[in-house]
Amino acid sequence: MQEFSSYKEKLLTEQIEEQILDYITKEQIESGKKLPNEFILAEKFGVGRSTLREAVKLLVARGVLEVRHGSGTYVTSSMPLDNDPLHLREIEDKISLAMDIVNVRLILEPEIAALAALNATEEDIKRLRELCSMVEDKIINDEPYIKEDIEFHAFIAKCSKNVVMGQLIPIIDTAVLLFVNITHKALKRETIETHRAITDAIQKRDYIGAKTAMLMHIIYNRDKIKEIKDSRNSDR
Amino acid sequence: MQEFSSYKEKLLTEQIEEQILDYITKEQIESGKKLPNEFILAEKFGVGRSTLREAVKLLVARGVLEVRHGSGTYVTSSMPLDNDPLHLREIEDKISLAMDIVNVRLILEPEIAALAALNATEEDIKRLRELCSMVEDKIINDEPYIKEDIEFHAFIAKCSKNVVMGQLIPIIDTAVLLFVNITHKALKRETIETHRAITDAIQKRDYIGAKTAMLMHIIYNRDKIKEIKDSRNSDR
Repeated sequence: MQEFSSYKEKLLTEQIEEQILDYITKEQIESGKKLPNEFILAEKFGVGRSTLREAVKLLVARGVLEVRHGSGTYVTSSMPLDNDPLHLREIEDKISLAMDIVNVRLILEPEIAALAALNATEEDIKRLRELCSMVEDKIINDEPYIKEDIEFHAFIAKCSKNVVMGQLIPIIDTAVLLFVNITHKALKRETIETHRAITDAIQKRDYIGAKTAMLMHIIYNRDKIKEIKDSRNSDR
Repeated sequence: MQEFSSYKEKLLTEQIEEQILDYITKEQIESGKKLPNEFILAEKFGVGRSTLREAVKLLVARGVLEVRHGSGTYVTSSMPLDNDPLHLREIEDKISLAMDIVNVRLILEPEIAALAALNATEEDIKRLRELCSMVEDKIINDEPYIKEDIEFHAFIAKCSKNVVMGQLIPIIDTAVLLFVNITHKALKRETIETHRAITDAIQKRDYIGAKTAMLMHIIYNRDKIKEIKDSRNSDR
């Protein structure tokens, strides 16, 4: 019966993993914020602390949680990094996939930025400006900035106060990181300028300004992908 | 401690849900076949009948089981329709969720219909017309048509030839079935008319026509949800 019982344990750990993810969504615990301690969570989910710890480990591996020793467990992202709910991993033509993703972003994200200008709270705007600066600092210091970039866009989706947008954008934008990170570091100046313009417009409650700034941001990305796609085609 | 104990109950229900799924797979119970009665299953899984019934309800919502009153519980599919990648199950305000979903659809699906008018193959259009007729027949015969309806919309997304759209739309539209099926059967005439208009426009390669027909279709749904939302608010 050894095999059965370890299967059940695995199943239970994965269920708790899923429940922690659901809990983060439901309680809207943002990245950087702390989870309740393991005694509270173990009781909440009706499991032992060792099961809870295993589930936390899985979420650390997936980039969702971070354990800071002597301090607690923090949310680093509400979206698991290995998550591929759109099953895009299988797609072979990565440049066409990059184009498909940017075309979806082009439809969704300008509208989301407009909604964020209408619905963001003052506290949201403060956080958005922090995220904007974080991306900028990384770019200026020539460090990888794509995680912070995704966090910036995901947070704008949260500011729209549409829960479906809040869930969709991290999935779509994380797909860029996972599969088709071809424009990264190619658009440094443009990213700094358009991110600032988006943040400013949301702060000023400029609905159309937020939409057009986001459009411009994504058009820069699309043009870059088009350039890469065309140069590949002319190689043939 | 009310909240904690209901969390535990929920966990148990989901474990039983998973065990029923495993049981269907292991016993190879095909769709259309009957499950053992609830006394037998409750004893088999070592839970009370009320927990078992809750688990059955979840599987009904996931398109796996169907309860025929006075007859028994039947398997309709061994594959759950969902795995809730957007984590919408936890969201409590279902009418606001319905509005959030329809607002996302309003942004995405008209653009997708336009792309389908540009990119659908002749074979695609034949299949689209079949799906359109299937929904219509179900509506005319007063049968549930939401699964066919989702298939119609998911197929249009496939016709857009954008792989990300093709993956996104089934997830978003299935969320309607799973969580917020509040307009179903309220818009029969409108659904027949607008589905036909969408299909005709795609067939005629009428880019703008496909977009406007889809807009109209989703606006009917949004207006209905708005009506339900407003009437709930005025009840308070």
